[in-house]
Amino acid sequence: MLLAFVRHFAALAAVFFLAAAARSDSTGDPLPSWNDGRAKQSIIEFVDRVTQAGGTDYVPPHERIATFDNDGTLWCEQPIYTQFAFAIDRVKELAPQHPNWKHQQPFQAALDGDKAALIASGERGLAQIVMASHVGMTPDDFEQIVRRWLSTARHPRYNRPYTSLVYQPMLELLAYLRDNQFKTFIVSGGGIEFMRPWTERVYGIPPYQVVGSSVKVHYEVVDGAPELMRLPEVDFIDDKQGKPIGINRFIGRRPIMAFGNSDGDYEMLRWTTAGDGPRFGLIVHHTDAEREYAYDYPSDVGQLKRALDEAPERGWTVVDMKHDWRTIFPVP
Amino acid sequence: MLLAFVRHFAALAAVFFLAAAARSDSTGDPLPSWNDGRAKQSIIEFVDRVTQAGGTDYVPPHERIATFDNDGTLWCEQPIYTQFAFAIDRVKELAPQHPNWKHQQPFQAALDGDKAALIASGERGLAQIVMASHVGMTPDDFEQIVRRWLSTARHPRYNRPYTSLVYQPMLELLAYLRDNQFKTFIVSGGGIEFMRPWTERVYGIPPYQVVGSSVKVHYEVVDGAPELMRLPEVDFIDDKQGKPIGINRFIGRRPIMAFGNSDGDYEMLRWTTAGDGPRFGLIVHHTDAEREYAYDYPSDVGQLKRALDEAPERGWTVVDMKHDWRTIFPVP
Repeated sequence: MLLAFVRHFAALAAVFFLAAAARSDSTGDPLPSWNDGRAKQSIIEFVDRVTQAGGTDYVPPHERIATFDNDGTLWCEQPIYTQFAFAIDRVKELAPQHPNWKHQQPFQAALDGDKAALIASGERGLAQIVMASHVGMTPDDFEQIVRRWLSTARHPRYNRPYTSLVYQPMLELLAYLRDNQFKTFIVSGGGIEFMRPWTERVYGIPPYQVVGSSVKVHYEVVDGAPELMRLPEVDFIDDKQGKPIGINRFIGRRPIMAFGNSDGDYEMLRWTTAGDGPRFGLIVHHTDAEREYAYDYPSDVGQLKRALDEAPERGWTVVDMKHDWRTIFPVP
Repeated sequence: MLLAFVRHFAALAAVFFLAAAARSDSTGDPLPSWNDGRAKQSIIEFVDRVTQAGGTDYVPPHERIATFDNDGTLWCEQPIYTQFAFAIDRVKELAPQHPNWKHQQPFQAALDGDKAALIASGERGLAQIVMASHVGMTPDDFEQIVRRWLSTARHPRYNRPYTSLVYQPMLELLAYLRDNQFKTFIVSGGGIEFMRPWTERVYGIPPYQVVGSSVKVHYEVVDGAPELMRLPEVDFIDDKQGKPIGINRFIGRRPIMAFGNSDGDYEMLRWTTAGDGPRFGLIVHHTDAEREYAYDYPSDVGQLKRALDEAPERGWTVVDMKHDWRTIFPVP
């Protein structure tokens, strides 16, 4: 009986220690969906360098902050940003209460599915659609609306739920960094409350590690119950210069690694890699029209020029999606 | 050899499992600086309730969010807020560059140590002093200024560093909650960048789990180096209605436990305890003039009236500092 008990715990302990060892064993492969090459090698070398106790580039765990853009870096952003697809569907749902939308841009374009007219309406048009469809409710109610939409909406090309169109190599990278005691954050131009309902389930990133754009919120007591209300007013745009500002505000510590895919990530990459000590910047370059999309400049979505041009001089790693990634999306 | 190996791991495993058990053993005392009584009992009963797997009030770990006010809840806020003492010292340090301050309120009062005149200058005066002394530098530089000040400044009554005047019972409570897989956050009216340099060392709370008031920050490239600059403009006041708004913005999940000590925490307590499922609110009532301070209403600092009046009907626990806390500060 006692021996069985001892054996049982020994087996448990062995499993525990072997699992721990496998994670840090440099002969194992923590990134199986990455083809061997400079991109993969640069990631692993950097992580080895900053985690080697006693090494000159050692970074203590509490300073191991890694920030990830979302659209185009962690999940597919083509043919339109997912949140834009959500906003269009919301406009259609709300249209019966707004008969004038039929004759008013950019709503008319959204209702007609007229992508060219939508794009022509520019950022102002997009903002109008988001403001009309994302506010006037509590954050809890908005969360339910997002969850419901994600459970039924399908990507037009892949006919899969949007949350399944995340990049398998990046999922492995997130897990690999966390296994090495990194804290992983999303820093996205997308709406913070559009991401938070699903980032924990999909990426293992809890809501308080998500930084994004936001609308103003008001506190009020309605019929004796305290409530928050989403207002039709922009609070913060977490894009371009907004990214280092958002990181400073929400995280309060400069990352040592940053990952992006567009010029919207340029300032985050600059600010991250300008810090003292070892720093790492990476750009996902969409080069795979067959399995995903191929685009950089010019592009309506995820435009990438300056960050790509300057990557060599700044020492940023560029992922060539077609050649560096063995798989793109998780097996359905 | 094999048997020795098995024994070794069995011993390790046993130590591991016993340690885990001790933390959740209800006959142990996770809060030794709390006297037995209703306050301590209500905390432990609540934690047992939400962590009991299979229980009707079970809350999964990722939803175990606990928010703490800082001034007067985690550390001493008398005779003036610590950040105010810091700001006054900063004004004195900067005064040679601002000769007009000698004849200009509220700076004159700060330079003369005239507390009455300072208080008379009101929130506007305080804001002016903070704006004059906390901005025009990078967050990194501000962090260094805060660290330097904290290493030399001493509390006028206790003659101890301010960061040693944290409440021992609350340190135990923070650790106890974290041992029960809670995430602990600070939600304070104080400046976010005044707290972040030391909360990890003192409370075990990393910078990205600190919510506070902030100034606007600008991103710019100076001589080819990207920098953030603190501007003399308020960005967010994390007090009163600002607390639930700040929680929603930074944490994105409604807490199940909230801890405060003043009417500045009223809305946080209301919003937290109005959520579905088990909720817990607690007020630290400063009743101990001998070991610390006794104050509630009226008070220049940490005024407490409405939250205390409504505590019984709202089911909030009130800590009577004099009777509920065996010790106040950690042994120096």
